[in-house]
Amino acid sequence: MAWDLPDVTLNLRVLDLIGIFAFSLSGALLAVRKRFDLLGVVVLGCVTAVGGGSIRDTLTGTVPPVYLRDETYLWVAILGAMSGFLFGPRLERFDRTLSVFDTLGLALFAVSGALGGITLGFGPLGVVFVGALSGVGGGVIRDVLAGEVPQVLYRRDQLYATAAACGALTVYLLHGQVSDLLGQLLGALVVIGLRWLSRRGRVRLPVRRLGDEGS
Amino acid sequence: MAWDLPDVTLNLRVLDLIGIFAFSLSGALLAVRKRFDLLGVVVLGCVTAVGGGSIRDTLTGTVPPVYLRDETYLWVAILGAMSGFLFGPRLERFDRTLSVFDTLGLALFAVSGALGGITLGFGPLGVVFVGALSGVGGGVIRDVLAGEVPQVLYRRDQLYATAAACGALTVYLLHGQVSDLLGQLLGALVVIGLRWLSRRGRVRLPVRRLGDEGS
Amino acid sequence: MAWDLPDVTLNLRVLDLIGIFAFSLSGALLAVRKRFDLLGVVVLGCVTAVGGGSIRDTLTGTVPPVYLRDETYLWVAILGAMSGFLFGPRLERFDRTLSVFDTLGLALFAVSGALGGITLGFGPLGVVFVGALSGVGGGVIRDVLAGEVPQVLYRRDQLYATAAACGALTVYLLHGQVSDLLGQLLGALVVIGLRWLSRRGRVRLPVRRLGDEGS
Repeated sequence: MAWDLPDVTLNLRVLDLIGIFAFSLSGALLAVRKRFDLLGVVVLGCVTAVGGGSIRDTLTGTVPPVYLRDETYLWVAILGAMSGFLFGPRLERFDRTLSVFDTLGLALFAVSGALGGITLGFGPLGVVFVGALSGVGGGVIRDVLAGEVPQVLYRRDQLYATAAACGALTVYLLHGQVSDLLGQLLGALVVIGLRWLSRRGRVRLPVRRLGDEGS
Repeated sequence: MAWDLPDVTLNLRVLDLIGIFAFSLSGALLAVRKRFDLLGVVVLGCVTAVGGGSIRDTLTGTVPPVYLRDETYLWVAILGAMSGFLFGPRLERFDRTLSVFDTLGLALFAVSGALGGITLGFGPLGVVFVGALSGVGGGVIRDVLAGEVPQVLYRRDQLYATAAACGALTVYLLHGQVSDLLGQLLGALVVIGLRWLSRRGRVRLPVRRLGDEGS
Repeated sequence: MAWDLPDVTLNLRVLDLIGIFAFSLSGALLAVRKRFDLLGVVVLGCVTAVGGGSIRDTLTGTVPPVYLRDETYLWVAILGAMSGFLFGPRLERFDRTLSVFDTLGLALFAVSGALGGITLGFGPLGVVFVGALSGVGGGVIRDVLAGEVPQVLYRRDQLYATAAACGALTVYLLHGQVSDLLGQLLGALVVIGLRWLSRRGRVRLPVRRLGDEGS
């Protein structure tokens, strides 16, 4: 059966595939550390990989999601998961590698989620919301399925959802100002840069504390 | 791009906005207690606020959800979250305030979910199911993202899902009997009343125990 | 209002209803062990029962899901949950009974999810993905709502997601080779057989370990 693919530009498709590979690898690495078996590693990798896109496509009414209609997506996810299974145990700096691929997936899905929202004519808040959720969705599903508490919101030393939201906002603000590809690259760089700065301890947001603060 | 909004009556919209404010405030209060940073508070508030509506709209096939097409919804959610961030730490009776707004959100989303089901011609069970899930959805997502075990089902001293189901059933039974607005108000009052009674310890449902019970 | 039901064949409907009964009973049994009250048992049973189908219908764009349009489904779910509430406490071999019904639900939803994917013209990976997610979805939602860590992926002595994926693959490979009903039965038997073998300790998949393994 031939599918009429929606307006998925080549750019968006390539970004998607890189993001899927990165997230799948991050899911597989976590699964290896948790001592899942081979298929558990592949499943956790794939679910992590398509989680963000599923949220994006559900919220924008694009069903069935593109990764179910085009087998390339799931092959890339399996490739990413197998890479994690094969090379994961040999990595010396395991946590750092996991974090790098996690950030890459976060950046690419935040950008592609923002693009999806812009295509549908959402306003700034809607675009940021879809972008942020698409970015963090894969990681949240990965952590919940692996039996870990999702770190999205409360690890405030890592600016996770914040970085995704800022990247999506960047894409929205640059839309129509610069070429689409440049806007997407800059949006992804904002996400990666904020994550990097927050890991260095250079960017923090204010916190409200309960009690003992006078009035 | 102009959107043809679905049959969202003014009543439904106002109920939705109040429910979104209440749930967003409840999410923000929990985030403040968990010491999330400013954007973490806003994100948890917003996700809690739109969680119930997302479930309702997904189950009833209304995508993209209305809150992505009409920016008012997300502004109200941000307003609720900022209120929680600003005033939360000064609240003396913190848990009680959290519970009041949680109940209000539960009541309004149970009612609007039931209305969505009635509009689509669902039968009584379908209406109750959509209403109950819409009501509890925001709170479950809030608790999972905040790293807490969702309390929906097993805190049997609080009749949470039960209250939402009874409120949705009330809306269903009164549909066509009284004016829509009156039916919605009575449905919401049933939810609030059951929650209040259960917190006073006056309403309990039977429990089956394992073992040591003779036959 | 009259609904035009999608191409749900009689076979698929009967399989669905048996799967719903089995999963609802499994959810109710867990709720009884957790000492939920009567309505908590019914709600957990129903949500477990429709979880797999909701994922299947959302991924394949069939909304509203069939169980909301045809009240039979929710009645069967309630019947399953009430059976768990009434008979659960008298079961001597409680965990074993829970596991049997869990496996039955897993098998039937993996098969019906695979059928849904085949109907939409998905390739082999898409079919396996939808089948596996539909199979494990109900159990994951049940475990998360009951405050348990979902056991889908990391209990590698039980081949849970693996069994669902293999069953879905069987349905895909046999499609067009044998009659639909026979293909579905064989797919379900593959799931049940793999689960049974894994519980006997006879089937394991390889695991990668970190550190101390030379190269």
